[in-house]
Amino acid sequence: MASCVGEHFRVTIFGQSHSAGIGCVIEGVPAGKRIDLQELQAFLARRAPSGLSWSTSRKEADIPEILSGLVDGVACGAPFAALIRNTGARSSDYKTLRRVPRPGHADYVADVKFGGAQDVAGGGHFSGRLTAPLCIAGGIAKQLLAEEGIAVGAHVVRIAGIDDAAWPLEDLSSDDVLAPGNKAFPVVDDAAGARMRQAIEEARAWGDSVGGVVECAVTGLPVGIGAPLFDGLENAIARIIFGIPAVKGVEFGRGFAAADMRGSAHNDPYRIRDGRVAFASNNAGGILGGISTGEPVVVRAAFKPTSSIFIEQDSVDLEEMADVCLALEGRHDPCVAVRAVPAVEAACAIAVYDAMLEARMDR
Amino acid sequence: MASCVGEHFRVTIFGQSHSAGIGCVIEGVPAGKRIDLQELQAFLARRAPSGLSWSTSRKEADIPEILSGLVDGVACGAPFAALIRNTGARSSDYKTLRRVPRPGHADYVADVKFGGAQDVAGGGHFSGRLTAPLCIAGGIAKQLLAEEGIAVGAHVVRIAGIDDAAWPLEDLSSDDVLAPGNKAFPVVDDAAGARMRQAIEEARAWGDSVGGVVECAVTGLPVGIGAPLFDGLENAIARIIFGIPAVKGVEFGRGFAAADMRGSAHNDPYRIRDGRVAFASNNAGGILGGISTGEPVVVRAAFKPTSSIFIEQDSVDLEEMADVCLALEGRHDPCVAVRAVPAVEAACAIAVYDAMLEARMDR
Amino acid sequence: MASCVGEHFRVTIFGQSHSAGIGCVIEGVPAGKRIDLQELQAFLARRAPSGLSWSTSRKEADIPEILSGLVDGVACGAPFAALIRNTGARSSDYKTLRRVPRPGHADYVADVKFGGAQDVAGGGHFSGRLTAPLCIAGGIAKQLLAEEGIAVGAHVVRIAGIDDAAWPLEDLSSDDVLAPGNKAFPVVDDAAGARMRQAIEEARAWGDSVGGVVECAVTGLPVGIGAPLFDGLENAIARIIFGIPAVKGVEFGRGFAAADMRGSAHNDPYRIRDGRVAFASNNAGGILGGISTGEPVVVRAAFKPTSSIFIEQDSVDLEEMADVCLALEGRHDPCVAVRAVPAVEAACAIAVYDAMLEARMDR
Amino acid sequence: MASCVGEHFRVTIFGQSHSAGIGCVIEGVPAGKRIDLQELQAFLARRAPSGLSWSTSRKEADIPEILSGLVDGVACGAPFAALIRNTGARSSDYKTLRRVPRPGHADYVADVKFGGAQDVAGGGHFSGRLTAPLCIAGGIAKQLLAEEGIAVGAHVVRIAGIDDAAWPLEDLSSDDVLAPGNKAFPVVDDAAGARMRQAIEEARAWGDSVGGVVECAVTGLPVGIGAPLFDGLENAIARIIFGIPAVKGVEFGRGFAAADMRGSAHNDPYRIRDGRVAFASNNAGGILGGISTGEPVVVRAAFKPTSSIFIEQDSVDLEEMADVCLALEGRHDPCVAVRAVPAVEAACAIAVYDAMLEARMDR
Repeated sequence: MASCVGEHFRVTIFGQSHSAGIGCVIEGVPAGKRIDLQELQAFLARRAPSGLSWSTSRKEADIPEILSGLVDGVACGAPFAALIRNTGARSSDYKTLRRVPRPGHADYVADVKFGGAQDVAGGGHFSGRLTAPLCIAGGIAKQLLAEEGIAVGAHVVRIAGIDDAAWPLEDLSSDDVLAPGNKAFPVVDDAAGARMRQAIEEARAWGDSVGGVVECAVTGLPVGIGAPLFDGLENAIARIIFGIPAVKGVEFGRGFAAADMRGSAHNDPYRIRDGRVAFASNNAGGILGGISTGEPVVVRAAFKPTSSIFIEQDSVDLEEMADVCLALEGRHDPCVAVRAVPAVEAACAIAVYDAMLEARMDR
Repeated sequence: MASCVGEHFRVTIFGQSHSAGIGCVIEGVPAGKRIDLQELQAFLARRAPSGLSWSTSRKEADIPEILSGLVDGVACGAPFAALIRNTGARSSDYKTLRRVPRPGHADYVADVKFGGAQDVAGGGHFSGRLTAPLCIAGGIAKQLLAEEGIAVGAHVVRIAGIDDAAWPLEDLSSDDVLAPGNKAFPVVDDAAGARMRQAIEEARAWGDSVGGVVECAVTGLPVGIGAPLFDGLENAIARIIFGIPAVKGVEFGRGFAAADMRGSAHNDPYRIRDGRVAFASNNAGGILGGISTGEPVVVRAAFKPTSSIFIEQDSVDLEEMADVCLALEGRHDPCVAVRAVPAVEAACAIAVYDAMLEARMDR
Repeated sequence: MASCVGEHFRVTIFGQSHSAGIGCVIEGVPAGKRIDLQELQAFLARRAPSGLSWSTSRKEADIPEILSGLVDGVACGAPFAALIRNTGARSSDYKTLRRVPRPGHADYVADVKFGGAQDVAGGGHFSGRLTAPLCIAGGIAKQLLAEEGIAVGAHVVRIAGIDDAAWPLEDLSSDDVLAPGNKAFPVVDDAAGARMRQAIEEARAWGDSVGGVVECAVTGLPVGIGAPLFDGLENAIARIIFGIPAVKGVEFGRGFAAADMRGSAHNDPYRIRDGRVAFASNNAGGILGGISTGEPVVVRAAFKPTSSIFIEQDSVDLEEMADVCLALEGRHDPCVAVRAVPAVEAACAIAVYDAMLEARMDR
Repeated sequence: MASCVGEHFRVTIFGQSHSAGIGCVIEGVPAGKRIDLQELQAFLARRAPSGLSWSTSRKEADIPEILSGLVDGVACGAPFAALIRNTGARSSDYKTLRRVPRPGHADYVADVKFGGAQDVAGGGHFSGRLTAPLCIAGGIAKQLLAEEGIAVGAHVVRIAGIDDAAWPLEDLSSDDVLAPGNKAFPVVDDAAGARMRQAIEEARAWGDSVGGVVECAVTGLPVGIGAPLFDGLENAIARIIFGIPAVKGVEFGRGFAAADMRGSAHNDPYRIRDGRVAFASNNAGGILGGISTGEPVVVRAAFKPTSSIFIEQDSVDLEEMADVCLALEGRHDPCVAVRAVPAVEAACAIAVYDAMLEARMDR
């Protein structure tokens, strides 16, 4: 079931870009937990279009209404449900989309899959807009994790070939991890961020788009969370991150670079520090055998460049089965990676909190 | 539940490296399908230790006994179950492992997770040996897919910095995809393979290990298989591949390289060819919005270097809580990526066949 | 996860009696299926309080808003979501409930389970009101089944010891099965119905309540739907029916009476009729080995008498840990079995349609 | 997936009556728990054919081999797997079954479902023999529950219209509940048991069979285990019990008799006893709103008479599509309810232990 994820903290996402609303149902918010709705709203605001240069100008207030699950802000044990109204009118912009699929989008494959019944408007259930309910669930997971001393934060680590200052795999503090999220443009090094923004602006000027990489870290996670085989932290985090539109790659720790290393360099040695087991390095990105090591979990997600561009592209007319030239209009994020930063945090938070609940059953 | 994956073709894996046996139960093999057990055995043989230089010399016959699910070689609708006996004696090699965790292994995290009750012998349920039942399930999925004209094949695309000949993302035939699997060392370019083997041999001579990247492709997949959000092809394939020990990254199509591209270069244009919709390129790696495009699905998995090395490493004695120096003995694959090639195929085949069954319910 | 049911037609129910709203998300409505919202509304109206003697006088319009999943009334492949607003104000009637649990209700057990954080108002997530979203999902399942010639209908077969005319296990037509649902009081024999209503009225006059049995049948189901062991028709139907508040027993075919029969009398013989395999009787209630036989599926659900009564009852004050006498006020159905008739139909329809989808994967 | 049940203590059952073996995989046995294999074997022996009058004379040693999950008898956190070999030869007795379905069995419906590929021998995956792996899982669950002071026991409460001494719904001790299981014929009142055995013997003499009712109770369960809606104790217990062949009805507490009661008589009043909340009666059978009340959980399951009888029956020849007369040979239990007693205990234990694990996530 495509729209549902999690075993214990289970999130079901509904809605299409232009349906009456979008939202989520969450089963597994432990009873008695207070949810700070202002903090949740602030988290959602990081995902919402800002009107700044890297973002679409579509107006989306994205203020969720809590339908159930909370009584006076405290989880009551019943499923949590939230709804965000879609205020944008069902425009005629999308009428031709049923005939002429946009390159890089799911228009055509959805048409085949659903026999032409799919909701084409705004990308339907495939829209990046569905990351809003993901962020509702992730924002709640982040709060539940924070209560246990676990921080989840992310930054844009690379855009258009420009690198942000690297996070060390070791010695990341929760402050380090949360800092970029407080900035309008979520990077560590603002100078690098300025260059990224310039690159984005240049692409936009051409009607084009750029890709990027988001790096996310989880600090404070105790040792022993996760599992071998199919429900390890890597499996679970990757599964949800690949649910964010435009993600084409996910790696942990040294990731693909590990493939070029020798074992003697990659293995993280153990040391006793202050009477506790510690790691001398964190090439593993905080995960061994699917299970947390106690070091920061570090994951990177590669985003392809935004599919919606305003340069003419080759496409086809599905009705006439003829080649056509497609010129999109409207406004779209020229780099989805920026607004995806909270979505990546949300994905990690959901996966990690689900694993925290799972760990209650280990012994 | 860590050891179970798939919604419709559901695989449950059991066993530890040194338990009585390892195996799997598969629910969802459609009744009436003939399973070729010789072909399955041949597939498993690709994973089994070969005694060649890149492989451990542990003797593992890995001949599964079919416990249920087949009548005269034909699926009867009941769960398929298979068992591989562990013939290696429960050696005393592993006695110290409970005290001194091996760097890069899950020994320590499993000790914390399971309160010291975990099976340390041979890595227990974390052992690479568990890829044998994965390959049983994957081998059956491969046969079921082949019946529908779908081929799944993989090769070692990079080891120790040495690249195999690249597969084009477009125009991969089933023959291309299946060819490396017929070789003792599964590469496209045997000269590159020879250099890789030399690099492996050098690392082994030092008691060290190397990492690598496995590339897998699925050809013949019809358009429209998969789903948006959490059960798309990328999510499902990544989730299972991360269940193979030592995987630290997964990417599709251009993968991380896509992050450096512009939309105008990355978007795959549509064209009408022979009266059908086709793509002029396949940067997406055969997947848009989690759904198959009809082009080859191309995925790469990064493997860290084998954790078991024979150079002295820093570790700790968990009982005395003291730093120690660990010198492993025995024999291990100096590069797990090679024997992981069929495991990656198995992971992809399971995910894709599960999605094929799911697609029966689309309309 | 308590609030989610179904493998392929998966229903997640949210809401509490006095939260902002109640509703459901349904994954698995096949794309392209037209849903008749007027018919759905008419089905929901059967469950809604009628103001007639056997029903509470609480005003519940119970008109769902469709949030997603339909485009112009046609399923688009994305999850279906619907919301019913709770219009009744959050009254102070329920303030004392946190201290003094109502006998026969879940107040006390929920208090223990959720550490006092449960939503006490109106029974929270335990309220019979949650059968409204169950009926939304069931109403849609009924429409999807009707399209395949399958009818689901129910009647009150017994109330306060008074029996309705019995349905024969054999030769039930879809007309027979649907007829009671068109009546204000859903019985076969209106004279029996009149006596039942009188018994209900008498109980109400005493501030008391009565129990009853609902019988539901599914006609037109093809042979071969269901499965052995844990996901057979009986398992699935029973699992959902026990989700309707006040159900204490479920039986199929001869049910408990079968326990007193001999095999020679209970076994349903096979006969060839009109060139097809038929059954000479239907003691099995249309199910053998968890799988449909092609004969009508017949299930009966026993409802305990309504827990909310207005006679003084012994209870306790949880704060003072003292015995108290509880006198409830307000209005409640004196017999929940009547309004539960569509809920039982909904439960059966969801289970059966889910099994229909499952059957697509049999071969 | 029909052969898998449980969310946290998840049991997957494999095997057919005449396949190489039958068995189960259990995920979720907490690491560190010691499993007493002798006690498990003793539990299985209660289900095995005894050669006594009410039982088939088929020889089934039913000694499971533990394949994985235990190290020196202690759960290691990896899935538990066990195998029972099928020693009975694949006889030719069953050859005609593919053509002539046995009334009351699943032969015909399985033939339609699986397109003739089903395993007909001994009933295949539909065989009562599959209750052996169910009892393995249930026996382990019973041990895990016993460690927490929870006892699960059952008796034959009625056979062929003869009642055993009734268990009171209140004040059942663990000794009461476990006592019948220690007898060759599991009843409370041995005189009633003797009459039952005579009735069984009479039916057998005629080549006929009788049905019965099994009553099971769970004592010592704390308050607050379970959930509303679809995963309550009633839902879960009923779902698994209906997986035992021949069950046609399940009821809790007063069950169907509750339908004839008034609320004032059925509601269980609360009282403070010894400073704790207690119930003055237990008509609810220990469950309110799907959640345990702390009183004994009491459930009854109705078994139809054994389908395999040796009186001639009407059936059909599926190949020639003609009416035929079927005379079965061989030996079968003339009353499955007796040997089903441990299976009902197993079903309850699995459901209850799964709910115990689930409850770890309530707050």
